[in-house]
Amino acid sequence: MKNVLVAQSGGPTAAINASIFGILEEVLKNEQEINLFGAKYGVKGLLKEDILNLSQLFKNKQKELLLQTPGCVLGSCRYKLKDFNESEEEYEQLLKILRKNNINYFLYIGGNDSMDTVLKIYEYFKKKNINDIFVVGVPKTIDNDLLETDHCPGFGSCAKYIAQTFAEIERDCFVYDINSITIVETMGRDAGWLTAASCLSRLNGMKGPSLIYCCETAFSLNSFLKDIEEAFKEKKQLLIAVSEGLKNEKGELISKEAKYNKKDVFGHSQNAGVAKYLEEFVKQNIGCKVRSIEINLPQRAASFFSSKTDILESVMVGKKALEFALEQKTGVMATIKRKETEEYSVYYDYVFVEEVANKVKTVPKEFITADGKDVTQKAVRYLKPLIQGEQNFYYENGLLKFITLF
Amino acid sequence: MKNVLVAQSGGPTAAINASIFGILEEVLKNEQEINLFGAKYGVKGLLKEDILNLSQLFKNKQKELLLQTPGCVLGSCRYKLKDFNESEEEYEQLLKILRKNNINYFLYIGGNDSMDTVLKIYEYFKKKNINDIFVVGVPKTIDNDLLETDHCPGFGSCAKYIAQTFAEIERDCFVYDINSITIVETMGRDAGWLTAASCLSRLNGMKGPSLIYCCETAFSLNSFLKDIEEAFKEKKQLLIAVSEGLKNEKGELISKEAKYNKKDVFGHSQNAGVAKYLEEFVKQNIGCKVRSIEINLPQRAASFFSSKTDILESVMVGKKALEFALEQKTGVMATIKRKETEEYSVYYDYVFVEEVANKVKTVPKEFITADGKDVTQKAVRYLKPLIQGEQNFYYENGLLKFITLF
Repeated sequence: MKNVLVAQSGGPTAAINASIFGILEEVLKNEQEINLFGAKYGVKGLLKEDILNLSQLFKNKQKELLLQTPGCVLGSCRYKLKDFNESEEEYEQLLKILRKNNINYFLYIGGNDSMDTVLKIYEYFKKKNINDIFVVGVPKTIDNDLLETDHCPGFGSCAKYIAQTFAEIERDCFVYDINSITIVETMGRDAGWLTAASCLSRLNGMKGPSLIYCCETAFSLNSFLKDIEEAFKEKKQLLIAVSEGLKNEKGELISKEAKYNKKDVFGHSQNAGVAKYLEEFVKQNIGCKVRSIEINLPQRAASFFSSKTDILESVMVGKKALEFALEQKTGVMATIKRKETEEYSVYYDYVFVEEVANKVKTVPKEFITADGKDVTQKAVRYLKPLIQGEQNFYYENGLLKFITLF
Repeated sequence: MKNVLVAQSGGPTAAINASIFGILEEVLKNEQEINLFGAKYGVKGLLKEDILNLSQLFKNKQKELLLQTPGCVLGSCRYKLKDFNESEEEYEQLLKILRKNNINYFLYIGGNDSMDTVLKIYEYFKKKNINDIFVVGVPKTIDNDLLETDHCPGFGSCAKYIAQTFAEIERDCFVYDINSITIVETMGRDAGWLTAASCLSRLNGMKGPSLIYCCETAFSLNSFLKDIEEAFKEKKQLLIAVSEGLKNEKGELISKEAKYNKKDVFGHSQNAGVAKYLEEFVKQNIGCKVRSIEINLPQRAASFFSSKTDILESVMVGKKALEFALEQKTGVMATIKRKETEEYSVYYDYVFVEEVANKVKTVPKEFITADGKDVTQKAVRYLKPLIQGEQNFYYENGLLKFITLF
């Protein structure tokens, strides 16, 4: 019997459980040979031997609900393993638990921080000449900032939600015949992919954002005012997309500027969002209605407008990761590669996890216009296929049915 | 030929264009007898004779897209007509434009402020003995605060979006095995209906908010801390729903308290949202992870999770308003009445608009628990039918297709 263990780590997405679905489907096809376990709360739970028998558990569960349940059904953690050159304690504990449960295959679903965990465990095993436990990373992050994969599972659904939400906010803002500015902040501290995705709101004849500022371009408050002035020549109601991680010419966070100047109601320094900060800045400098919106957690938690393309790829990436592990590959992460065909199509591959761990793939220069206030057609061509298709959902009481494992 | 004019006013909803669909469907069935015009930007556009021939315009448009397009396709306004005892100028202008275009039926879609416009025009016509122009109000508001109607078109879709979003935020917040508080603010300055709707996130086995504070109950910061302490005995991650219009014992807005104490980055007083204010308050008083989310415009603009029940009723209420106008009723608003049957079912009626204009229907006492920190089963029974059913959407490029009239 081959025992496989899966765990989830980092921030949730709408597609992260779809990868478990993919793994589970393969396991259940070979249930005489493979058994699937899940660690609760990522590696943090694993260290406490907080383990569920998923093969058993799913006998009475509707596993298709994994495709429409956001968050992490196994729970997650933000936990950095210590360097094993400094302390081996955690690694020994981890090894003990894996051995005790006869687990030889460990699949870890996560982003760049989580791939650091995969890398460290792989390196520790290598150092200790442990050759019979195989560790494979399964990519996921709404931030789309993992290297070596064309895009990341979870990103497409988030991008679709953002595109649709921008289109709807645009409809809302355009109803009044007055000058107005609406600044919308998307997630992404280190990469502007989600901000770039706001351009997709233009696909169906909407105007979309007048200005799109990704955090890859240095942001200047002075140029911002000029950009707004320019944009007002085109239309009355401006929609502006900004990255959470927008930085000034010195590389300092714009929202950090806010932090330094701002006191909260109790007189303490407070970390304002960049959209809120820019709202105030514009209010002081331009006389019109200004509002800011932080899309916040719903953008990564929204299953009800997930991308079918993203969900199916997330399933596949889970399946592939299991396949790679069973082929005794280790220290690798499954990747999605885009074929160079006219019509969008992908294949799956793997990469040595060191190429990915702790690294960030930012939006490339050719995706951002030279003036830094919009994205290019190249970006649209890259992004558009990722948001295609809608799932058929299971509903109950007017809401999506979710699955709960504990 | 009977000429009907329709206009939209107040804040947008996901269902407001469905009422135009209802009117249009009736008109097109009788296109030899009835012609439909639309004033742009509500009464403000009407005063400028900014009028579209909708019967003509929709010959080349897919009118079903009205059922999935948020915002106001005709544009909207927030405009209060002057008291005609003080100045008749606007009323004369309005009458002149209606006469010039041979319009005898005026349908105005809006909330309590917009019904003030219907009332004033009706009263002015009455004073002037104008007996051949019939003015009928069509209710809409996400706030659900119109009297004399069981509920308001637009509310069901917003409530459904809120219920689903709370369920998804819950999934997101519960992934980490740490104590945390997430405070979520819904719209509603004068009535807590949308906050109450967060309870529906519990329908499919989720835990939903640990605390629900509607603005009908006086809010105390001290009790708030005690409620949190109590709630932490039950679970680690607290989700808390608050009304935008939460008020203290003196009837002052909690967010106004914030305003008085708070300076923005430029040293000016700033109006913080109540959730943000409470986030800071809790951070200072309780040592755990705290975040706040303002659902903001997406809650009223989100078509992609609209309630089919709400959309169909919004269609019907438009049809009925036209019917009432053609029956030469005037100074009335169409209403939805719930039948006293086991299974949810409604009929349509009308009410003299004075009963509705400028008045607010708050959440009744029996819908809020005695301790003021949750809603009752009565509230659930009232709310649940309003979010049932999902629309079949027209998609293009992975997004909902919207209709644009100008």
